[in-house]
Amino acid sequence: MTRGDAARAADLFDPAGYWRDLVAFTGNIQTAERRPAIRATLERALATVSPTTWQLTGPSPAGDGFLLRFETRTGRGIGHLRLREGRAWTLLTALRELKGHEEPAGPRRPHGVEPSWSDRRRREAEELGTVRHPYVLIVGGGQGGIALGARLKRLGVPALIVEKNERAGDSWRKRYRSLCLHDPVWYDHMPYIPFPDHWPVFSPKDKIADWLEMYTRVMELDYWTSTECLNARPVDGGWEVDVLRNNQPLTLRPTHLVLATGMSGFPAWPRVKGAVSRKASGGLVFHSSEFPGGAAYKGMKCVVVGSSTSAHDICADLVEHGAGEVTMIQRAPSIVVRSESLMELAWGRLYSEQALAAGITTDIADLTLASVPFKELPGLQRPLYAEIARRDAGLYEALSKAGFLYDFGEDGSGLHSLYLRRGAGYYIDVGASQMIIDGRIRLRRGSVEALDNRAVILNDGSRLPADLVVFATGYGNMSEWAAKLISPEVAERVGPVWGLGSSTKNDPGPWEGELRNMWKPTAQPNLWFHGGNLMQSRHYSLYLALQLKMRHLNGS
Amino acid sequence: MTRGDAARAADLFDPAGYWRDLVAFTGNIQTAERRPAIRATLERALATVSPTTWQLTGPSPAGDGFLLRFETRTGRGIGHLRLREGRAWTLLTALRELKGHEEPAGPRRPHGVEPSWSDRRRREAEELGTVRHPYVLIVGGGQGGIALGARLKRLGVPALIVEKNERAGDSWRKRYRSLCLHDPVWYDHMPYIPFPDHWPVFSPKDKIADWLEMYTRVMELDYWTSTECLNARPVDGGWEVDVLRNNQPLTLRPTHLVLATGMSGFPAWPRVKGAVSRKASGGLVFHSSEFPGGAAYKGMKCVVVGSSTSAHDICADLVEHGAGEVTMIQRAPSIVVRSESLMELAWGRLYSEQALAAGITTDIADLTLASVPFKELPGLQRPLYAEIARRDAGLYEALSKAGFLYDFGEDGSGLHSLYLRRGAGYYIDVGASQMIIDGRIRLRRGSVEALDNRAVILNDGSRLPADLVVFATGYGNMSEWAAKLISPEVAERVGPVWGLGSSTKNDPGPWEGELRNMWKPTAQPNLWFHGGNLMQSRHYSLYLALQLKMRHLNGS
Repeated sequence: MTRGDAARAADLFDPAGYWRDLVAFTGNIQTAERRPAIRATLERALATVSPTTWQLTGPSPAGDGFLLRFETRTGRGIGHLRLREGRAWTLLTALRELKGHEEPAGPRRPHGVEPSWSDRRRREAEELGTVRHPYVLIVGGGQGGIALGARLKRLGVPALIVEKNERAGDSWRKRYRSLCLHDPVWYDHMPYIPFPDHWPVFSPKDKIADWLEMYTRVMELDYWTSTECLNARPVDGGWEVDVLRNNQPLTLRPTHLVLATGMSGFPAWPRVKGAVSRKASGGLVFHSSEFPGGAAYKGMKCVVVGSSTSAHDICADLVEHGAGEVTMIQRAPSIVVRSESLMELAWGRLYSEQALAAGITTDIADLTLASVPFKELPGLQRPLYAEIARRDAGLYEALSKAGFLYDFGEDGSGLHSLYLRRGAGYYIDVGASQMIIDGRIRLRRGSVEALDNRAVILNDGSRLPADLVVFATGYGNMSEWAAKLISPEVAERVGPVWGLGSSTKNDPGPWEGELRNMWKPTAQPNLWFHGGNLMQSRHYSLYLALQLKMRHLNGS
Repeated sequence: MTRGDAARAADLFDPAGYWRDLVAFTGNIQTAERRPAIRATLERALATVSPTTWQLTGPSPAGDGFLLRFETRTGRGIGHLRLREGRAWTLLTALRELKGHEEPAGPRRPHGVEPSWSDRRRREAEELGTVRHPYVLIVGGGQGGIALGARLKRLGVPALIVEKNERAGDSWRKRYRSLCLHDPVWYDHMPYIPFPDHWPVFSPKDKIADWLEMYTRVMELDYWTSTECLNARPVDGGWEVDVLRNNQPLTLRPTHLVLATGMSGFPAWPRVKGAVSRKASGGLVFHSSEFPGGAAYKGMKCVVVGSSTSAHDICADLVEHGAGEVTMIQRAPSIVVRSESLMELAWGRLYSEQALAAGITTDIADLTLASVPFKELPGLQRPLYAEIARRDAGLYEALSKAGFLYDFGEDGSGLHSLYLRRGAGYYIDVGASQMIIDGRIRLRRGSVEALDNRAVILNDGSRLPADLVVFATGYGNMSEWAAKLISPEVAERVGPVWGLGSSTKNDPGPWEGELRNMWKPTAQPNLWFHGGNLMQSRHYSLYLALQLKMRHLNGS
């Protein structure tokens, strides 16, 4: 590659090999699959960002490949390489910093002595969005917006985050009382300030909320609370964005617009007859995102529609608070996996105390995970779920007996695949499955046809008395945000956001080899999507931030 | 030692050797100097806490000795050893954890899934100090109280911090605008959550304040703001402590009382005729601790009494804000050292990016610093100051020419010695010295005899017009807090707090080999003192917390 010979460089790859690049050579996030695609990508890349040095730094402590460093004309990166019969089977290249524009960390940290840091900081914060336009406007101040804001702050790119809630962290704080992260702590660190080492394995939602609030403050993010984004218009290579800040209308003029409104930000209400009128007349009907927690429903008959994570958590919360009767209405099979099994068999290899002890830092874990081609993921995951099915046979038998429909995804590739394809459809069991088995959570299969003020009516015509109805029916595609805030035309042009194009249910093709439209340029100039879980917010915020930094440097 | 033979163990030491123990063998903080004292300490120690294993883990990356691990019957510790002609010249032993009572970190972290973390946490916080008595009451919520509170929280010892200010961090926030730490960032980390790596070398005071506030929150400390401690009475092996919480009187009944009111917490006003009446009649007279910053004194004639850190900083702040005339009144010589020189020649070896790159973690740096016997410190520091005098000869010559009296301490052992002896009397130059040289800060030697409403009158009879007078005259001994809050008798019994007993100015003997009464049992049962800079707050909070934990376990 240093010689600029794409054909010979491509021959170093296995014919069925993969090259995934995170911004280092393509300025984009993309996976080239098989040798001809790799060669084509190389040809384009070598013409612009010639690599200058490659250095194999040794076998990965994760034990499945080699780590490497490289430089290009403009930046420095790290990579991950797996060999197959002496050729590259998978290569990951990831940009880490731009030459001359490194983050001011370690030896580059500022000196700090100045007349008044707080006066300067206050002035800067007051001016951004009023006197000075932000270069980047981030809509949504959850973990995604905050992580990206932190990256851009360190890179010196003026960015403003707008959040409709009153406090940073409220997107977690306002959820139901018993909510905990279902991903373990080692997976969940924010960039730059990892959790201290006594942080619980599964973080309670208010603890995450407090952490995000303090993080926003100490990272000096420009973060407007109580600010709702009303709409955005593409104008002159940038954007005009109308917001309501503390109920005052204001127009912002950023160059780039990032929608970090959350994969789980656009509540999906099923079209159910009577739901609106029951709600309008003061009846207890919620989407899971609004559910205030089970304390107020003691003794009541409760119906929860759905069988993914929120449905399970809300049912368990209601049971624990002494609801009179809790019924889960299952519409379709869900993946259920015991948290412990997932920890031991899946996460633990990269994200755990044992992994840390083996030298697998969070960064190496992230790289290793990113190095697995999406195409190969189902094949690699299936044996894992076979093992889980064997090990937890008792659980699955008991769930079946209780009438619960479970599967491991339509191709048996499990939870991680399903998350990437649909972002929904699973439950990591931290206790609710046993409640189903014990009958403390009753189970009904079917779908809800209608509501009246006393009951839900199922598709088999039966009537189920319900004082409370919760629709844990998930969230719409992130592109709905683009449709709502910008225009249906722009949303249409951009296409679906998230999903791989796997042609499985709810993930229509064509195959893209990457998560669609995530952290990368879209068909709408200067419009970006950012989101996902804490791991993705942490890791991919870097590559999105670097893409924005490059544009900021080029004045585009 | 594992054989319990004190005489033979003592013979392994150089006859002029030292053994410093941090709670591991003596349950106290003490240095045994020379072989007979070491043997006596060993005899006492071996009778109670027999060591079971010793393991040399290798040469210290700091390059001046060996690191080791050991276990005793009850705990695990680490140590540092310097050899001289095959025998131990200096040995440091430091307890790190109690067997069976390790901090819940890493593999011991909690699981996290519970009905509601925030409800439980709120209930616990409401009950401590009202329904349940804290085992430890910490008076003062600056970095010292906060670091100790964090240690005790992780150790499961119920502790309550009371702070008179409205917000955690206010003890920094309320100081003059331009204040920055004069210690570099690598020295200043709090326990458990280090600063991110872009944190400035010299932290602005509001940035530290914000960090402490968020730290208090995310570490879940029980921290009462707007709570003033009025007085404390020893009662039945514990304490009765009257506090005003949000102006409501309340009596707390802790078993242990920790005064973490700050080494710089008790303003020392010199007895100057007319000061009180000038202040009473609305004249501008401040102690440095109350000085609000230079912005309000544009064009005014300003007099600052003192020539240590605050005096320099306040003079510089006034000059930068356009005061009409700024005069420093120097009463006695001060140590002045350029920040850069100190960084390169002193701090940098243990606390810097280079040190980190060499594998000298914060913890190893702290241990190495703690391993140097106080007795040896002046001898080790003198050559350093000789080098500084040589390297910065230009600065010192210019300062002399401007009339500034400087020295390197009465025995030439410099700033670190003086800090340990008196906690005052020096300036780490970050710019004010050049202002003195340039005449932007005028200099007068002498002392202030009296004030009237227009001027200060010096001891040579001269009258210096002064619209503003600031007494940067330092702080009283921490034992004044004991006198004020408990009783003069208790303060007298405890004796001076801080200082080594070096028999130099303001540090009367006898020699104690340790900082007097700091982090260790005092003559008053269950009364403790905690304080110092961020490094000391970080490092010594562990040993104080372990002493309190042992007592909590023993129910005493």
